[in-house]
Amino acid sequence: MRERLSSYIREKIIISDEEVEQVLSLFKVMQVKKNKILISPGETCQRLYFIYKGCLRIFFLTAGGTEATRHFAFENQFATALVSFITNETSKEFVQAIEDTILYYISQKDFYHLLQIIPQWEKLYRHYLEYAYVTNTNRLMSFITLDATARYRQLLAQNPSIVMRLPNKMVASYLNISQETLSRLKSKA
Amino acid sequence: MRERLSSYIREKIIISDEEVEQVLSLFKVMQVKKNKILISPGETCQRLYFIYKGCLRIFFLTAGGTEATRHFAFENQFATALVSFITNETSKEFVQAIEDTILYYISQKDFYHLLQIIPQWEKLYRHYLEYAYVTNTNRLMSFITLDATARYRQLLAQNPSIVMRLPNKMVASYLNISQETLSRLKSKA
Repeated sequence: MRERLSSYIREKIIISDEEVEQVLSLFKVMQVKKNKILISPGETCQRLYFIYKGCLRIFFLTAGGTEATRHFAFENQFATALVSFITNETSKEFVQAIEDTILYYISQKDFYHLLQIIPQWEKLYRHYLEYAYVTNTNRLMSFITLDATARYRQLLAQNPSIVMRLPNKMVASYLNISQETLSRLKSKA
Repeated sequence: MRERLSSYIREKIIISDEEVEQVLSLFKVMQVKKNKILISPGETCQRLYFIYKGCLRIFFLTAGGTEATRHFAFENQFATALVSFITNETSKEFVQAIEDTILYYISQKDFYHLLQIIPQWEKLYRHYLEYAYVTNTNRLMSFITLDATARYRQLLAQNPSIVMRLPNKMVASYLNISQETLSRLKSKA
């Protein structure tokens, strides 16, 4: 099972067998049921997750109490409440498993320790940060520059698995539209 | 004058004198007048800027043709159209000097070359990416969770120099509110 995580790492960086073993030894495995909340606002996020199977959702509550979904992560992706993980401040976000999910996780302390001892680990983290930054910025721009129809079409083109795999409620919350609007857009597409 | 850039680097990472010289040799200096556009949509962003004096603004145009400001950077900060810099795709954003500005810049090619040859450069870039990610994500959340008044108060608390130093038109565009609303908020504060 750890094969998948080690393949992922070897695809991203040049790393010796010994270093891979060192990295893997710091990851633990956990299984969580659908809907399980892993991080809640007010907690400091101390773990980075690698998804072996399933899906994690990062979301927060608006002033009006509505759930606003910021990100979905699927198999072979890292995910966490990254702002809290970076800043050590309490999270404003929830991290939730939205399917029965199998995860590897590493503590923040061990993760930053790897940055000290394995220079290539910086490169792996850099790729993760670059991806997170690009995804988030494009998302911020889409909220300001695109209407609901255009946002839905963009999502369908760039990340169809979100639309296909996940319940309408979650997809609507990701697009910041009502479920009714989403159903209308889906039927027109 | 290069003193400031070398101090900035030495504060962030552990680096030898020789490596600092190597880094500095890849930066060039330029002076630009207020309002000068450095990057326009459709161009690929090939440079990272370090601000010696002045201010850069990153903005884009909404579907309706309004300017939406995403970021301001001041003295001793790096700035660029970072999504384009990372992805090598054409920029959707403008980079503009909004005061008479003195910049150091490094080409994207040289910047990535430094990542290869100076391991600590990864750490400096990591800090920049972490900062950019945290800033952007908090901004995305503030648009969804806070109303105009709360966004203005947050800006005043976290980054007063934006409100004090820059013209109302720019500040309003950063908060995604009209200049009239901004004037009303300023007079109430």
